[in-house]
Amino acid sequence: MPQASLEQIAGRLRDGTLAAVALMAEAGARYEATEDRLNAYRTWAGDRAAAQAGAVETLLRTGVDLGPMMGLPVSIKDLYGVPGLPVFGGTDTEFPQEWRRPGPLVRRILDQLGLVTGKTHTVEFAFGGLGTNPHWGAPVNPWSEPGAPRAAGGSSSGAGVSLAQGSALAALGTDTAGSVRIPASFTGQTALKTTFGRWSLEGIVPLSPSMDTPGLLARSIEDLSFLFAAIENRDRVGARDVGSLRIGIIRNVVWDGIDPVIAENTQVALARLEAAGARLVEVEVPHLDRVLDIFRRGGLGAPELRGFLENQFPERIAHLDPAVRVRVDQANEITASDYLQRRAVLAECGSSAARAFEGVDLLVSPTVPVTAPLLADLEDPEIYRQANMMALRNTAIVNLLGWCATTLPTGLDGNGIPTGLQIIAPPHQEERLLAASLGVEAVLGAASDLLGPPPL
Amino acid sequence: MPQASLEQIAGRLRDGTLAAVALMAEAGARYEATEDRLNAYRTWAGDRAAAQAGAVETLLRTGVDLGPMMGLPVSIKDLYGVPGLPVFGGTDTEFPQEWRRPGPLVRRILDQLGLVTGKTHTVEFAFGGLGTNPHWGAPVNPWSEPGAPRAAGGSSSGAGVSLAQGSALAALGTDTAGSVRIPASFTGQTALKTTFGRWSLEGIVPLSPSMDTPGLLARSIEDLSFLFAAIENRDRVGARDVGSLRIGIIRNVVWDGIDPVIAENTQVALARLEAAGARLVEVEVPHLDRVLDIFRRGGLGAPELRGFLENQFPERIAHLDPAVRVRVDQANEITASDYLQRRAVLAECGSSAARAFEGVDLLVSPTVPVTAPLLADLEDPEIYRQANMMALRNTAIVNLLGWCATTLPTGLDGNGIPTGLQIIAPPHQEERLLAASLGVEAVLGAASDLLGPPPL
Repeated sequence: MPQASLEQIAGRLRDGTLAAVALMAEAGARYEATEDRLNAYRTWAGDRAAAQAGAVETLLRTGVDLGPMMGLPVSIKDLYGVPGLPVFGGTDTEFPQEWRRPGPLVRRILDQLGLVTGKTHTVEFAFGGLGTNPHWGAPVNPWSEPGAPRAAGGSSSGAGVSLAQGSALAALGTDTAGSVRIPASFTGQTALKTTFGRWSLEGIVPLSPSMDTPGLLARSIEDLSFLFAAIENRDRVGARDVGSLRIGIIRNVVWDGIDPVIAENTQVALARLEAAGARLVEVEVPHLDRVLDIFRRGGLGAPELRGFLENQFPERIAHLDPAVRVRVDQANEITASDYLQRRAVLAECGSSAARAFEGVDLLVSPTVPVTAPLLADLEDPEIYRQANMMALRNTAIVNLLGWCATTLPTGLDGNGIPTGLQIIAPPHQEERLLAASLGVEAVLGAASDLLGPPPL
Repeated sequence: MPQASLEQIAGRLRDGTLAAVALMAEAGARYEATEDRLNAYRTWAGDRAAAQAGAVETLLRTGVDLGPMMGLPVSIKDLYGVPGLPVFGGTDTEFPQEWRRPGPLVRRILDQLGLVTGKTHTVEFAFGGLGTNPHWGAPVNPWSEPGAPRAAGGSSSGAGVSLAQGSALAALGTDTAGSVRIPASFTGQTALKTTFGRWSLEGIVPLSPSMDTPGLLARSIEDLSFLFAAIENRDRVGARDVGSLRIGIIRNVVWDGIDPVIAENTQVALARLEAAGARLVEVEVPHLDRVLDIFRRGGLGAPELRGFLENQFPERIAHLDPAVRVRVDQANEITASDYLQRRAVLAECGSSAARAFEGVDLLVSPTVPVTAPLLADLEDPEIYRQANMMALRNTAIVNLLGWCATTLPTGLDGNGIPTGLQIIAPPHQEERLLAASLGVEAVLGAASDLLGPPPL
C-alpha cells in the first residue's frame, strides 16, 4: 500500500474517514514500540498531543478548519520554543522559561493546530553534522544493522528518526551547515533548507545567527511542498516537468573522497533524470575551496556560539560535549578582524558564485559523500572530527554561499544506509526549487517506494 | 458585582479560574431562559459552541493560545457566512450553500476559536432601522414593558438582543445607515461602525456594496476596544483623558423632532463631559440636508439591492417583506444617471464635510432621536415608514459622509428604553475614536452601571 501523503491525510481528517485521535494514537504506538532502540526525543508530549487531537476532532466536526496542518503530528527540534515544553538545546541543563516562548514558525504551526509530538534530540547547540550527543545519547539510525548502531546525522538527529519511526509525519529542524539535509539523507527522508532570512529565527536557540536557517524534514518532497505552502499560507506549487529542466552537476569538490556506491547511486539517479528529458551539464562552482577553508577553521559558527555562551551562559562552557567544546575553545583564537574578514569573504564569494546558475535551473550534488559512521567509532575525537567535516562538506557549501536546497533519497549504500541527492537553487527561489524537486521525485520515485521500510 | 470585562474573562479562561465550558453553559442557560420572549436568533448553535468550548479548554490547558477571542461566546448576524450554519439574510428562504463560506472577519474570529453561539435575526437584507421581520418575527426589545413589546432596533436586531440576553458577550453586525448603532442604542449596548472599506465585505450578504460596513456590538466600549484589537491583531488603545478632548456637538438636523427626554439625557451626558474638562463647541455639518434628501429617496441601497436581487435572486422579490419590497419596487424609478449623480454628490459632500472636524477631535449627536416604537404600531406601513426614517436619520449621516462612529448609553427615556450618544470620527480614525470613547465611558459610566439589568 503506498504511503498516504499529508494532503491525503488532511483530506481524510476533514471528510471523517480518519479521526485525528486515531492518527495520533498510531503515532504514539510507533513511538512506544521503537523509542527504546531509536531515542528520537528529548521530551515526548504524546499525551498532550492526544488530548489536542480530541479537540481537533471536535473543531473539524463543528466546521472550524484552522489550516492544512490541523491535526497532523509534528515533531520539533529541541532548539525551538514550544509552550509548556522544556528547552535543552542539546545541553545537559534546561534553558530558562522564556526560551519556551514560540517564535513565528512554531506559532504558525500551533495556530493551525498542528499537534506537537515532542522535542527531538539535537547535537548540543546544533554544532555537529553527525547527530551525536553525550548528555542524552545519540539517536540511532533506523537503517543500522542490528547490533551495530550508526549515526542518524545531525544536528537535527531526532527529527529524521522521528519520521522514520512514524511518531511524526513532519519535523521541524534547523540547518546551519547541513543540519536538516544530513539527517534526512541518512534516514531516508527529504528536507528543505530555506534561504537565510526567509523564516524568522526568533524563538530558536542560536548557533550562528548569521548562518542559521529553519528547515523542514518530511517523508516526501510532496509533503514538503504541502508543509511549505501551509507555513507560508500560499498556494502549493505544482511539479515541474523534468523534461524542461537544465541541471548543473557540481563538478569540483563534492565528489572528492566519495564512497563509490554513493557516487553510483547519484549517477544512476542523474541518468534517470536525463532519460526523462532533463539536460545535464557539469558546472564548476567558484570559490568552493576558499569558503570551505573558512568553514574548516570554525567558520562563523564557532566564534558566534562562543560569543553567545560567554554573554549569556558562561557557566555552561565547562560542561559542553567535548566534541563541541574543542571548537568553542579554538574560537578563542579567532580575532575580531579575522571574523569580520570571514564575513566579508563569504559575502563576496556568495555574490560572485551566483554565476554558477548561468544557463542552468538548478545545481545538484550528492547530499553526503560518505556513509553514516558507526556510533562506536565516533568516540575517538580524531575520527569524529574527520567524519563530521566530511559529512558536512557538500551541504555546508549551500549555507556558505547563501542558497537554498532540498535533499531526496537515491538508494542505499553498501551498509544499507540511505543516500541522497542535493538539489540547490539561488536565494529565495524556494518555490522554483520545490517545483523542480517534485519533478525529480516523480522520476526517481518517493522515498517509501524506493527504499522500503527501515530494518530497525 | 460589576460586570466582568472581556479582558478579565479572557484572563480567567487562561489562569484556570473560569472554564470555557462553564462560560458557554451560562450563555446557553441565558438563551434557554429568555429566547421564547426575546427571539434573538434565527439559528442557535449552542450545542456546537459547547462542544467547541471543551476543545478550547483542552487547548488552553495544553499551552495552545490562539488569540484574545478564544473561548468567548460571539453571536453573528445572519448575513455573514459561518461554516455549517444556514444563511437566510432575513429572507424566508435559505441562501445556497456557498454563502456559508466565511469571509475574512468571521475567519479571524474562528481562527482565534471565538465560539459562535448562532446566527442572529436581521431585517430582511438589512434594509431597515427598526428590527422588524415578518418572516421570522421581530426580536423584542428586552427593555419593553411586559405586554407591550417594542422594537429592538435594526437591522442587527438580534445582535443587540443577544447581548442584553447574555447569550453572547460580543456580536457581529453590519451597518449601512445605522444598523449596529440603532440596536445597540435601543438595547443599552455599545457599538462600533467601522469606516467603509476598512474591513472586508467578503462573505456577507450585501445590501449596498458601496455603503455596507461590518461592525461590532458589545456591552461596553472597553469590550469593543478589546474586540477591535483582537480582530485587527494590534495593541489595545488606552483611554484618552476627556480633559484633552474638544467635542463638536452637531447643531443642525440631529435635534429636529427629538424626544425631550432623549434630548435631556444627551445634554446631561455632555454636561458631565464638560465638567470633566472636555471643551464643547457647536458645529454645523455642511450638506446634511442634501445627503439626507438622497437617503430619503432610496439612497444607493435601494437601487443596489434591486440590482443584486434581479441579477441573482429575481424570484425572491415577490415574497420580500412588504416594508422592504416597497423600497425595492420604487428603486425601479431611479435611472442609472440619477444613481451615478447620487454617488458623485455623496463623494463630493463627504470630502467637503471633512471641515466639520476642524478645531474638534470628534463630533457627537444623540444616536437615535426617538424611542423604540411599539412593534404593534409598526404594522401600519405609513407609521413604519416615518419611524424608520426618523430612527435612521442621525446615524445615516455618518455612512453618507464616509465616517466611523461609536454609540454608548446615556440613560433611559420616558418609556424605559435606553438612549445613546453617538461619537463620530473622520475616516479610518477608529483608534482615535475608541480612545476618546473609552474616555467618555470612564466619565459617563459603563452601560451595566448606568442602566442596570433590562426588565424582560
